[in-house]
Amino acid sequence: MPELRKDPVVSRWVIIAPERADRPNAHLRAQHEPDEQTCPFCPGNEAMTPHEVRRAGGRGGTGWTSRVVPNGFPALRVETQMARSGNGLFDQMAGVGAHEVLIETPEHALPLSRQSQEQVQALFLAAKERMIDLSRDLRLKSIVFFKNHGVAAGATLSHSHSQLIALPLVPPELSEELRCAQDHFERKERCVFCDVLKQELEQRVRVVHENDGFVVLSPYAARSPFELWILPRQHRAIFEQAEPRELLLFAEALRTVLRKLDVALERPAYNFYLHTLPLREPLNGYYHWHLELKPMLTQQAGFEWGSGVTINPTPPEEAAAFLRKTEV
Amino acid sequence: MPELRKDPVVSRWVIIAPERADRPNAHLRAQHEPDEQTCPFCPGNEAMTPHEVRRAGGRGGTGWTSRVVPNGFPALRVETQMARSGNGLFDQMAGVGAHEVLIETPEHALPLSRQSQEQVQALFLAAKERMIDLSRDLRLKSIVFFKNHGVAAGATLSHSHSQLIALPLVPPELSEELRCAQDHFERKERCVFCDVLKQELEQRVRVVHENDGFVVLSPYAARSPFELWILPRQHRAIFEQAEPRELLLFAEALRTVLRKLDVALERPAYNFYLHTLPLREPLNGYYHWHLELKPMLTQQAGFEWGSGVTINPTPPEEAAAFLRKTEV
Repeated sequence: MPELRKDPVVSRWVIIAPERADRPNAHLRAQHEPDEQTCPFCPGNEAMTPHEVRRAGGRGGTGWTSRVVPNGFPALRVETQMARSGNGLFDQMAGVGAHEVLIETPEHALPLSRQSQEQVQALFLAAKERMIDLSRDLRLKSIVFFKNHGVAAGATLSHSHSQLIALPLVPPELSEELRCAQDHFERKERCVFCDVLKQELEQRVRVVHENDGFVVLSPYAARSPFELWILPRQHRAIFEQAEPRELLLFAEALRTVLRKLDVALERPAYNFYLHTLPLREPLNGYYHWHLELKPMLTQQAGFEWGSGVTINPTPPEEAAAFLRKTEV
Repeated sequence: MPELRKDPVVSRWVIIAPERADRPNAHLRAQHEPDEQTCPFCPGNEAMTPHEVRRAGGRGGTGWTSRVVPNGFPALRVETQMARSGNGLFDQMAGVGAHEVLIETPEHALPLSRQSQEQVQALFLAAKERMIDLSRDLRLKSIVFFKNHGVAAGATLSHSHSQLIALPLVPPELSEELRCAQDHFERKERCVFCDVLKQELEQRVRVVHENDGFVVLSPYAARSPFELWILPRQHRAIFEQAEPRELLLFAEALRTVLRKLDVALERPAYNFYLHTLPLREPLNGYYHWHLELKPMLTQQAGFEWGSGVTINPTPPEEAAAFLRKTEV
C-alpha cells in the first residue's frame, strides 16, 4: 500500500507507491504505443479501466463524451485507513487520498489543443465536480488537478487525458504560495496575484492573451521557456466556485494558448497544473486560483536538483512577444 | 547578460540566461554526439574551450590528466558588475557568479564509474581547490558542484565532466536544509545528519555501503528510485576542509556505488550534487556536508511541479537491499 514519508532533515513529504512500479513506463523503459484496439481509454475498452466514477453522455457501454476513472496504478488510495506513525526521526502516514484519470474525449488522437471550446470547458467542469465530491472526505486536505501531455512530459498514454490527486496534506508548492500571499496581504491588504496582474497589464510585455475573464502571461521569473500562467482577471480564491460561463472563458484562454504553442513550438509536450485554495482553508482575500503551464523544452538536471534554482534560456518577454504574434 | 529574477509571489530566484539558448541541446533538439576529433574536451582540442583556469599534468598543449575551464555557455559570469534593482513587484540582480566545467580525464569514453579511485579523488580535490579559489570573491555566497551523466540526465557532451556554479545568493534547497538543521540543533544540541546516520547504522535497512570515512544510504524519504546520499561518518560541516585522505575514502564510496548502479541498472544516467556550508556562514555544529545522487529513472511531471511532492515507486529499503547484494 502507498505511504507518505517525511524527510528527517527538511519538511519534504514523498509518496512511496510500489504499485506504480508496475505501470507501463515506470522506469522510462521503451514502450509500444497502444492503438485504438488496445487503448484502455478508447470506446469499447471500458472494461480495461477500473469502474468509472463519472461519465458524460451514453448510458453504460460506449456513446460517452468523457469519463472519469480511478487510476489503475494509483499513487494514493481512498480505501486506505488513516494512520500516522513515527520511528525515531522518521515520520510516516498512510497513503490516503485519491488518484483519478479524466478521459477527455472518446477520440483516440484528439489532443486538448484541438478540442472545441465546449470540450475544454467540459473538462474543467468535470474536474470541478470531482473536486467538490472528493472534498466531502474530511481526511483530504488538497487536490491537485494536472495534465501531462506527450511522452517527454511524462504521459504514459497518448489518448488525451488529465488527472487529479487528492492529498491528506497541503503540499509544499501550495503552502508556500499561500504563506507568501498571506504575508503580502498582511503588509498591504491586497492580493499579490491581483497586484501582479495590474503591473503586467500596465507593462504589457509578458501578456500573451486575454479575454473578459482571464489573462494569460509568461511570468516575470519564468522557470522554463514559454512557462505560462492563466489567471482570473477578477479576484477569485477558489477554482471550484467558478461558474460555467467563467469556465467557458477560461477554456477560450487555455485553448488559444495551447494552439499558439502547437504552432510556435511544433506541438510541444507540456504539463499543466491548477493551484486553488486548499480544501480546509476558509475563503480569504489573498489567494487567487490559477493554472500554470510548462512546455517541456528544458531539463531539470544536477544544478537544479541541488540548488532549487532553475536556469531559463528564454526571457519571458521574448516568449510572450513570440506567442502574441503567432496566429491561430 | 544573465540576470537573476525573483518571483513576485514566492521566494524563488530564477537565472535568465539567454546565452545558454545557443548551446547544442538547449531545447532538447536532436544532437549528433561528437567523436574524439570534434569533442571540445579531448586532448588536441584545447583551443575549442575557453582558456583553462586549472590543469593537472602537462605544460601547455596535451599531456594533462584533468582540466577546469569556464563553461562556454555560462549561466552566470564573474565579469558582471554587481547590481540590484526593483521595478514595482519585480526584483532583479545582475547575473554575477561563475560557471566552470571540470574535465575529469583526457579519455573520451571513460565514465567516472570506471575511473580509478585516485582519479575520482583528484576530481574532488580539483573541485575543492576551485571552490576555495572562487570563495575569495566576496560577492559569491554559495557554490554548487554537480554532475550530469548521460543525455537523460541533461549532459550535453558524453566526455566525462562535472560542473560548478557559484551564486551571489544561498539557493533555496541549501537554505532550507540549513534552516531545518539549525532548528533541530536548537531543540536538541545535535546535528540532524549525525542523528540520521546513527539511526540508519542501527536499522541497517537503507545502508548500501560504508568504509572508515563515509556511509552511503538510500534516504528514508527517497524522492526517486535508487536515490543515494554519501555522508562523512564523523561530523563535518564543510566539504572544502576535507583532507586528501578523507577524499580518497570518499572516492572509494562514490566509485563503489557508481559501479553497483552500472551493474544493477544497466549504466543509468544520473545527477549528483554536493551540499556544503554556504561560503559566508560561520563554522557550526549543525550542518554536515554530503553528496546526493539521483539515477534518472523517473520523470518530474505535472503533479510533481504543481505540488512539490514526488512519487517514488521504489521503496529505498528495496533499492538498498538490491545494491548491497550487487557485486562489483
